[in-house]
Amino acid sequence: MQIRENLAELSSEPLHASLTAASMESMNLLNNIAGTYPEAVSFAAGRPYEGFFDTDQLHEYLKVFTGYLRCERGMTEQQVSRTLLQYGDTKGVIAELIARNLAVDEGIDADPRSVVVTVGFQEALFLVLRALRADDRDALLAPSPTYVGLSGAALLTDLPVLPVPSGKHGLDLGELVRLLRAARDAGRRVRACYVTPDFANPVGISMTVADRHRLLEIAASEGLLLLEDNPYGLFHRTPDRRPPTLKSLDTDGRVVYLGSFAKSGVAGARVGFAVADQPVGGGLLADELSKIKSMLTVNTSPIAQAVIGGKLIANDFSLVAANTRETAVYQSNLTQVLEGLAKRFRDCDDVTWNEPDGGFFVVVTVPFTVDDAFLEHAAREHGVLFTPMHHFFGAGTESRQLRLSISTLTPERIEEGLDRLAAAITSRLPGGTTADATVGTATGAVS
Amino acid sequence: MQIRENLAELSSEPLHASLTAASMESMNLLNNIAGTYPEAVSFAAGRPYEGFFDTDQLHEYLKVFTGYLRCERGMTEQQVSRTLLQYGDTKGVIAELIARNLAVDEGIDADPRSVVVTVGFQEALFLVLRALRADDRDALLAPSPTYVGLSGAALLTDLPVLPVPSGKHGLDLGELVRLLRAARDAGRRVRACYVTPDFANPVGISMTVADRHRLLEIAASEGLLLLEDNPYGLFHRTPDRRPPTLKSLDTDGRVVYLGSFAKSGVAGARVGFAVADQPVGGGLLADELSKIKSMLTVNTSPIAQAVIGGKLIANDFSLVAANTRETAVYQSNLTQVLEGLAKRFRDCDDVTWNEPDGGFFVVVTVPFTVDDAFLEHAAREHGVLFTPMHHFFGAGTESRQLRLSISTLTPERIEEGLDRLAAAITSRLPGGTTADATVGTATGAVS
Repeated sequence: MQIRENLAELSSEPLHASLTAASMESMNLLNNIAGTYPEAVSFAAGRPYEGFFDTDQLHEYLKVFTGYLRCERGMTEQQVSRTLLQYGDTKGVIAELIARNLAVDEGIDADPRSVVVTVGFQEALFLVLRALRADDRDALLAPSPTYVGLSGAALLTDLPVLPVPSGKHGLDLGELVRLLRAARDAGRRVRACYVTPDFANPVGISMTVADRHRLLEIAASEGLLLLEDNPYGLFHRTPDRRPPTLKSLDTDGRVVYLGSFAKSGVAGARVGFAVADQPVGGGLLADELSKIKSMLTVNTSPIAQAVIGGKLIANDFSLVAANTRETAVYQSNLTQVLEGLAKRFRDCDDVTWNEPDGGFFVVVTVPFTVDDAFLEHAAREHGVLFTPMHHFFGAGTESRQLRLSISTLTPERIEEGLDRLAAAITSRLPGGTTADATVGTATGAVS
Repeated sequence: MQIRENLAELSSEPLHASLTAASMESMNLLNNIAGTYPEAVSFAAGRPYEGFFDTDQLHEYLKVFTGYLRCERGMTEQQVSRTLLQYGDTKGVIAELIARNLAVDEGIDADPRSVVVTVGFQEALFLVLRALRADDRDALLAPSPTYVGLSGAALLTDLPVLPVPSGKHGLDLGELVRLLRAARDAGRRVRACYVTPDFANPVGISMTVADRHRLLEIAASEGLLLLEDNPYGLFHRTPDRRPPTLKSLDTDGRVVYLGSFAKSGVAGARVGFAVADQPVGGGLLADELSKIKSMLTVNTSPIAQAVIGGKLIANDFSLVAANTRETAVYQSNLTQVLEGLAKRFRDCDDVTWNEPDGGFFVVVTVPFTVDDAFLEHAAREHGVLFTPMHHFFGAGTESRQLRLSISTLTPERIEEGLDRLAAAITSRLPGGTTADATVGTATGAVS
């Protein structure tokens, strides 16, 4: 079972350019550092909380879904087993259930025919970018810093990304318009703007409601398609006061909504979706995405869809309701991290951070460059992991920021991690400035 | 829930060229005809037999797999639930099990590190083509006619396909060498040759063992990578006399093996894999494919992988053993179709067909053009479906052949279908020539 040593070297010819792009290396580099220091407290991974995981739920959800196929959809046993075990419809078998979820949780009125069920959000994003990228003139607008998966999918489709500065409330809309027009004047065909209005990865912050309306007005007046990504919106400090999604405000089909069940459903199902109700030819953009999907992954595993479908049905189509416990954990963790930073850096004006109303991320600004060497130092010497923000800006950039993810830790680990982080940051501050790195230890575990 | 009628038309700007390619339309067209005539006997779909489907198996396989994680891999309950429910390793969690299966069933010695678990064969194919396609000089060799999913994945990666004629035993190797050299002389960089040595879709036939050795020699002497697709190899008339896969004969890393569990495992799991042990930089091609996958689908659903993993474990890693009943059905169906054609067209020298030793497909040649109008006629007037072979040749081609798939029908439906097919073909033959379209009815059901 050894790799043969005498294999011919394949790479005498170049491989696709995406494979040598810095943003494709980021994930590997970060994973390698994380793997080298398994005992470190990790504020790095933006994964869902595992404390309520239970594999028995898989069996339960599958049974709920097959029961739905029998009772609500009137299927025979043969049809039920065919639905789960055979090749399936490319657009998926839970579009109707997803539409009901979007109506209940988001106030989005989605026609099931406009829904394409995908292998996670990431495939939905790829399908849209692949459809939109027709030739070398095409480009995409996206906030800077941005989610690495956006950069990656754009690389895979050879689609250049034009970065739009992100301010205190997300996308700088004045800059967006200026950059859009400048790109068009330069002969670019700007196909869409990618945006995460709620608790965006990596910045953690949300757009104001006024900015959401203004962005939709810009989209209408400039003829710009918006690709809305919403993995974290549910996890709001006050779930019933969540701001409206762009798609729920979209009256003339300017928004393609890209959904994820990785944080709110079951990450291991790898199920996401696109709502693409834009007319194309005689059909919908969803049908075009489905054509591409038929040549990419054929269809999303109906077994995985059944797990998500069962969870939706079991919770009366509300993922807000399904995530009551998880949302409480995220909110508690977020509060603990924000208060913990305030305690530790109260005498340190050079260290600041933003204060999101929810989601998974907090961004800390320090008075020195946060490069991968500092991450390695923090992991090795202090036993703490985070994500240097430069990874979200693209190759060759420097940043004095780091991203903390609060989603997977226990209160005890958060206190320990913040002590370690404070020690790591302090080690780089000018002499005389010292964060209080013993707050957590002094106060003990915070519940 | 209605699609709003006043949505702006998106397609004022063109979409990606793949979306208007003929081969992308083929699937829709064929599905539409099939959907219009649901009562027709369908020799069209190359899907696995459904007679032994049982959703209880899902629960069983999941339990077997979680038991394996606990006992063989020594995982705690927390680790087990994390493995199934959380984001997972991009290369997958069943590489070791797949390697054991390949050793048992195929005599392939695969290092688990060279395995990338994918969302079906189709994603594995896409990953390889995306990795290999670096610029406009690149091209791919593939048999003509070929699997539509190959054409589709090549379109998605803007990779031109150079067709190699397929003869009585598959790829014409003399033509392969000639075309490869001509393409290189013309400045093309030929990155690989796609090939299905066993019961290829759509032609149904297999390469001789001598040709397999010769193809590997060509690959070595010409510096050509081979992409081996093997979805049907298990289903041989005499399973213990299956010819060797190219990968099992590959001594110097010329073959990337692209595996599917859609026919031999559980189609609804949508799990496939690549074995890519070619050195690239300091790692393996598998690692490069994994990087692309991280930006395409992130990872294959571990729940879906668990279903396949459980089935492999439950059958001592042999899918030959797991498919004893299915193989018997396919063999019986194939024999029935071949004998049925012989009975019905014994007086018709103008109608001929090939005689595969296994697999799902038989190709029938008739003395007139088999276009989509004839398919529509056969469906409407005679109640029978098949696949016109021109769909596998590419745009603008004509063919006098049709593909019959034998995998999903019962003996009764096969007899009825062959009667209908004979009637449909007869309706287009010159007057005086008449197939015996009553054989099935006369002899009744064949067991």
